[in-house]
Amino acid sequence: MWWLLLLITVVVVAFHSASASVIESTWEVEYKYWWPDCKEGIVMAINGQFPGPTIDAVAGDTVIIHVVNKLSTEGVVIHWHGIRQNGSPWADGAAGVTQCPINPGETFTYKFIVDKAGTHFYHGHYGMQRSAGLYGMLIVRSPKERLRYDGEFNLLLSDWWHQSIHAQELALSSRPMRWIGEPQSLLINGRGQFNCSQAAYFNKGGEKDVCTFKENDQCAPHTLRVEPKRVYRLRIASTTALASLNLAVQGHQLVVVEADGNYVAPFTVNDIDIYSGETYSLLLKTNALPSKKYWISVGVRGREPITPQALTVLNCVNATTDSRPSHPPPVTPTWNDTERSKSFSKKIVAAKGYPKPPEKSHDQLILLNTQNLYEDYTKWSINNVSLTVPATPYLGSIRYGLTSAYDLKSPAKKFTVDNYDIMKPPANPNTTKGSGIYSFPLGIVVDVVLQNANVLKGVVSEIHPWHIHGHDFWVLGYGDGKFKPGVDEKTYNLKNPPLRNTVVLYPYGWTALRFVTDNPGVWFFHCHIEPHLHMGMGVVFAEGVDRIGKMEIPDEALGCGLTRKWLMNRGRP
Amino acid sequence: MWWLLLLITVVVVAFHSASASVIESTWEVEYKYWWPDCKEGIVMAINGQFPGPTIDAVAGDTVIIHVVNKLSTEGVVIHWHGIRQNGSPWADGAAGVTQCPINPGETFTYKFIVDKAGTHFYHGHYGMQRSAGLYGMLIVRSPKERLRYDGEFNLLLSDWWHQSIHAQELALSSRPMRWIGEPQSLLINGRGQFNCSQAAYFNKGGEKDVCTFKENDQCAPHTLRVEPKRVYRLRIASTTALASLNLAVQGHQLVVVEADGNYVAPFTVNDIDIYSGETYSLLLKTNALPSKKYWISVGVRGREPITPQALTVLNCVNATTDSRPSHPPPVTPTWNDTERSKSFSKKIVAAKGYPKPPEKSHDQLILLNTQNLYEDYTKWSINNVSLTVPATPYLGSIRYGLTSAYDLKSPAKKFTVDNYDIMKPPANPNTTKGSGIYSFPLGIVVDVVLQNANVLKGVVSEIHPWHIHGHDFWVLGYGDGKFKPGVDEKTYNLKNPPLRNTVVLYPYGWTALRFVTDNPGVWFFHCHIEPHLHMGMGVVFAEGVDRIGKMEIPDEALGCGLTRKWLMNRGRP
Repeated sequence: MWWLLLLITVVVVAFHSASASVIESTWEVEYKYWWPDCKEGIVMAINGQFPGPTIDAVAGDTVIIHVVNKLSTEGVVIHWHGIRQNGSPWADGAAGVTQCPINPGETFTYKFIVDKAGTHFYHGHYGMQRSAGLYGMLIVRSPKERLRYDGEFNLLLSDWWHQSIHAQELALSSRPMRWIGEPQSLLINGRGQFNCSQAAYFNKGGEKDVCTFKENDQCAPHTLRVEPKRVYRLRIASTTALASLNLAVQGHQLVVVEADGNYVAPFTVNDIDIYSGETYSLLLKTNALPSKKYWISVGVRGREPITPQALTVLNCVNATTDSRPSHPPPVTPTWNDTERSKSFSKKIVAAKGYPKPPEKSHDQLILLNTQNLYEDYTKWSINNVSLTVPATPYLGSIRYGLTSAYDLKSPAKKFTVDNYDIMKPPANPNTTKGSGIYSFPLGIVVDVVLQNANVLKGVVSEIHPWHIHGHDFWVLGYGDGKFKPGVDEKTYNLKNPPLRNTVVLYPYGWTALRFVTDNPGVWFFHCHIEPHLHMGMGVVFAEGVDRIGKMEIPDEALGCGLTRKWLMNRGRP
Repeated sequence: MWWLLLLITVVVVAFHSASASVIESTWEVEYKYWWPDCKEGIVMAINGQFPGPTIDAVAGDTVIIHVVNKLSTEGVVIHWHGIRQNGSPWADGAAGVTQCPINPGETFTYKFIVDKAGTHFYHGHYGMQRSAGLYGMLIVRSPKERLRYDGEFNLLLSDWWHQSIHAQELALSSRPMRWIGEPQSLLINGRGQFNCSQAAYFNKGGEKDVCTFKENDQCAPHTLRVEPKRVYRLRIASTTALASLNLAVQGHQLVVVEADGNYVAPFTVNDIDIYSGETYSLLLKTNALPSKKYWISVGVRGREPITPQALTVLNCVNATTDSRPSHPPPVTPTWNDTERSKSFSKKIVAAKGYPKPPEKSHDQLILLNTQNLYEDYTKWSINNVSLTVPATPYLGSIRYGLTSAYDLKSPAKKFTVDNYDIMKPPANPNTTKGSGIYSFPLGIVVDVVLQNANVLKGVVSEIHPWHIHGHDFWVLGYGDGKFKPGVDEKTYNLKNPPLRNTVVLYPYGWTALRFVTDNPGVWFFHCHIEPHLHMGMGVVFAEGVDRIGKMEIPDEALGCGLTRKWLMNRGRP
């Protein structure tokens, strides 16, 4: 196959080359009117742009971003999704975990080294600001790229609601909870179509008219202009608030070569599933015909797809701009064909040359994911604790020993109801709220088993893509039903599990992962679905607490809650 | 007349009686679904209530309110409108002026003495949060009340939009500016009707149906239950974002006895004008018939009244609850009958016993109010400066001498274009932005002349109710056209001008006021129309800067911007 020639064994190296440079920018964050899906809405823009500017760095570079909060009354932070922040945990950008929100009118400077090549992105991590459009791509190139290709494109995928995030937050936090519903549109690089369809002419009598775009329309799709018979790298990231997606390129096969910033053993597919928080690189060899056009289509999986496909076009350079693809867009696989999705997930293994995971773990968490009630508020809970992120960032409370800032008692390492039936709604739907964390010494190997279950009502188990901050983990395996400790560990792939920062937990199943506590700091680990996280679906890992206690953390990261008070009083009699 | 017997000469006394008590509450601020005008919206509620709880204090009491910010991502403050905050300027609750916004998840404690009896209210003073419904009544009773009445009612008046304040803020801050339009509804004690009319049965074929309320409907008007032939005190406050209002009680005359917490020489009217930021007490003697009902109506003045009247009912105790007033509600005076409004304003003079103002002033500001453009953003400016409130509160920057926190250069004391034609759109529409303030020594007498002008386009001059913090001022007079320095001062009423904290500036006219700099602190003085303030229509007075430099200010009030940095570094090498 053509791509076999392109890929050489990968060696994972962290680059701190002498030629490393500094990428420095000032970003003003504010609301702006925008037409993401041809209907006017309000987005969170960076320097007047939506999505935000792409960071294009080389491994080893130092990135310095001065974030200026130009919002009226809201705080803001930015999380650099996929960057491990080794030595700079305060720059991870998770409000309440690693820093205080930046106040309106103030500036906070993120400074970190992008030590490893990969396809990443960044996004808001306070309230549901990511869902308001605060995101953009973060590409880290390898100074010695092993992949060979002739050109590349970034495709940042997101979903879009017409209701404001403030209204959404209230809806989800209300008693009874009001569900926000499915997104109105899917966006590719911030562009979608709500009122029209690009492909409607295949479907006369359909509900929507064919789109007609004017020049500079904010919702007009970017066309990918390509040469025939060349190899392109598509860098795909999903920052959806809710939707699990499938992406296909008409008439082309896709070679998956990277996932979450790590090379994987290349494999060929017709389409990929991509969950919120994941990134992929795909190699695509364009067909021979120089005047053809092909749909790139993005559709919903895992939930009943009320939202129409997002479409853009792969356009050979000789194709006229006014012509259209001659066939309908690829059909998204059936939304509930979970077996198909699992089959895709299982194809992903590490590229040659990646270190294997340690054979044994020192600690194991079994985290039951449940939907529950807390005083009739709907919550998502992990081992029966729904996370309440405190006003004082954990990183600061641990640094300065402020023990009243959060619950000192850790949540349970395993779910305590041994006979919990994951196939049914919870027998006792009541949960607890808390801000307790899991604390690990440095240098140990931790296994986490994510265990899915039935939701509160009906026969439903939802998809949860779990994302870890400050780390990659090895994905050791997936299983159906209830995890059997002492048994299912034997099925783990310890030979070539992929390194990732996000992994999907399938309905009624379990997912096992392993990581090494090699990064002193406090790290969020949570479902990347924005409403689920808003409803408490996350846990927090503190790593090397003694090291955190000696860490240099900029005061500006801790100017809220009890750390502000502590810092104001230090050195006083 | 009946009321002559009720009113005795008033002596103004500040009470710090030995029997003074402490009123202490914890208030949780959060968004909540509500039906203020029979259509579901989102309000900023306090302890789950809209409007917020009424504070009912006695002069001399200490009020302690622990405000807990339960919002997701927004800061919050509360301003105690009408309370002078003598000795506690940090508790005035003006974000960026006297304190930092309270961060989500944090608690800030306001503690102040209500030293003087009066009808007051409180409200949000950050972004446009007042317009989101963050308000309530603040009644301070006199231990020796001179007025005699049999009962009392509070009527808190507001206006309501269906668009969120976040969208409104963006609209006003956009280029070009998008006007938010007139309010959808007027509310009395947080209750109005959008889809129906209480009085529609007088108007068959009208646009709206007669309201039918269910029990506990949040939009069902409170009925004022009264006995015949008794005297009631109506305490009225207007916290509208935009609307100037007129209030009438069908079949009853109203005796105006108090304005903004100061007794006025009683006078009788059929209706009152009330501008945003003003309060009044009215005495009303109920008619003799024990089974009658009367409309209380509130309508718009000063702007073309697109918004329907707000209505509630004065119900004699024997009237059946299902019957209706037998005649249509009072008709609001013509919106643009400014002469009628002026005539009302001029009736307001101080009650006997109030001290006269000093005869001379030491300083004079002539503040031209103009609508302008700043880089094509629409702004309101005072002497060609549109106020930008800094991220660091003035009170803190002055306390700690942080001279880079705001523009040290004061804005001009007079408008510098001598031949400025107030009757026409500005010849040069461009303005400047700034954060400079006016600084006064303690113990001097300051005159302020507010000068109105034509707006940017067309032949229009708008109403601006100006509100001062930390003070009452004497309203010395009103005039038409351009103020003539050295001439118009001779028309000032120095005999019995009313003491107020809010005064209206009429279209194309001027308003003169005088105050004594007897309250060390930093005090906002601004147009009380929320969108106008959002667009820069205010100035700031610093009073007794040397005293501020020695003041005790709680650190928690200054936990943002440069003061946070300063406080974190004090006492360090």
